[in-house]
Amino acid sequence: MNTPVTVIGLGLMGKALAAALAHNGYPTTAWNRSDTAVPEAVTQLASAAESSPTMIVCLSTYEVMYEVLSTADLHGRTVINLTSGTPAEARKAAAWAAERGAAYLDGAIMAVPQMIGLPQAQLFYGGPKDLFESCAPMLRVFGGGTVHLAEDPGVPLLYDLALLAILYAAGQGLAHAQALVSTAGVSATEFQPYANAWLTHVIGPMASLENARAIDEGEHATDVSNINTNALAIGHVVRASRDAALPVDWLVAQQAQLEQAVADGYGSESATRLLDYLRKEMR
Amino acid sequence: MNTPVTVIGLGLMGKALAAALAHNGYPTTAWNRSDTAVPEAVTQLASAAESSPTMIVCLSTYEVMYEVLSTADLHGRTVINLTSGTPAEARKAAAWAAERGAAYLDGAIMAVPQMIGLPQAQLFYGGPKDLFESCAPMLRVFGGGTVHLAEDPGVPLLYDLALLAILYAAGQGLAHAQALVSTAGVSATEFQPYANAWLTHVIGPMASLENARAIDEGEHATDVSNINTNALAIGHVVRASRDAALPVDWLVAQQAQLEQAVADGYGSESATRLLDYLRKEMR
Repeated sequence: MNTPVTVIGLGLMGKALAAALAHNGYPTTAWNRSDTAVPEAVTQLASAAESSPTMIVCLSTYEVMYEVLSTADLHGRTVINLTSGTPAEARKAAAWAAERGAAYLDGAIMAVPQMIGLPQAQLFYGGPKDLFESCAPMLRVFGGGTVHLAEDPGVPLLYDLALLAILYAAGQGLAHAQALVSTAGVSATEFQPYANAWLTHVIGPMASLENARAIDEGEHATDVSNINTNALAIGHVVRASRDAALPVDWLVAQQAQLEQAVADGYGSESATRLLDYLRKEMR
Repeated sequence: MNTPVTVIGLGLMGKALAAALAHNGYPTTAWNRSDTAVPEAVTQLASAAESSPTMIVCLSTYEVMYEVLSTADLHGRTVINLTSGTPAEARKAAAWAAERGAAYLDGAIMAVPQMIGLPQAQLFYGGPKDLFESCAPMLRVFGGGTVHLAEDPGVPLLYDLALLAILYAAGQGLAHAQALVSTAGVSATEFQPYANAWLTHVIGPMASLENARAIDEGEHATDVSNINTNALAIGHVVRASRDAALPVDWLVAQQAQLEQAVADGYGSESATRLLDYLRKEMR
């Protein structure tokens, strides 16, 4: 009764997707580009794709997708593209699919391959809502956190890259912290309980609903930790990091933002005010 | 039966410390520098300090501490300094106190004033362990997380500033993420559940004991997320951020580190490897 599906791209993630489909009773054809014989593989793909109304694409880049689907007949088919890239690439791919007569969803997988199929695996989709609804029973086999975010096919990758930006920022901060304590001979293991508690009790709550509402409503009053205090504190972090010969450019940029906010009269407000400064840079 | 204590500095934090001491039965003298009449205030302080064997200092900077304690007789007294600053400032202050015949502990408060006295308030101390032990019953009234970290009086502020580095890094990443999604009209409130889940389930575990041990033991094997994958992904974050006219310097620095790690043959390893690159910059 289930729709036949072709999974294109058998990296670790493509394999996990194909396995989840097969495990849940979807007739699944899996296709991988051979690195050594592309023209032949593309011919194989054309026939693979033509045997399935739905194609799930999980390749290394959008360029590779254009290459491997160059000769496939997409007319009347549904392409669900889970390839990593940028929102602009996703929007361009949606237009490309429309020109070829295909229905198109773009998606982003916020999980490692080991998590595919689990309730906590988060997957974002964008594109026509009714198309998502018709595919949703199948897409839910990939994870419990399967959501349609927007009609705009660029939005899933926008969320994906936004979350990755937090990951890389926090990772940079954690490595900086570990390097800093190492100057007094403190190991990562000794520092770990404090870093862990800090991430749980102080960093996590930064993304609270209360803070998000403060940003959206422009209400930045605080009786907890204000911009004045943070402008002073980041100065200590910068000086101690310089004493340790650690790179401080990323800190200095934020210090300048805090000091500008003090100069602009926002010293007694919460640091939720700072997003305004970032938005100004975007104009 | 409790030792009399003088609290020097009555900002929000100094007030919270004095209140916790008084509430727990310590004869507490509180002293604040008058902004308009410093010489007179310093005279007042000298007599205040001389009435208490223990002084808890919580001023805005180390410079202010030197100024207000310039004429006080510290001989035979215990100075517990909770002023914010750098490890170098704490070490210098310990030497200064020793010259004046005072016992000295330096400390860092990882809590907002509202949290003083609560079980979850974390306070770090450094200096002679036996001095800490003798003061510990009194110091524990400030919070359940009262710990002695090292004989080195610079270590509490080193931990403090390391944790703040993570805070500022993660804050920068969160603001970047919110700015990025806002380019598709997504509000901070709409994005909040995903940012929150990400901080809890993905960012928090970065500071796991497993990762800390990997760093200390130099064992960076992974079957989850490797440097190759992250080097590719951070490239997407950089491109999408540039498309949104967001500042990318901090991302580009980390991208360069990931790409260097790939070039050095560590592509299949975990990003826990990256701390080595930061440590190299410190030499």
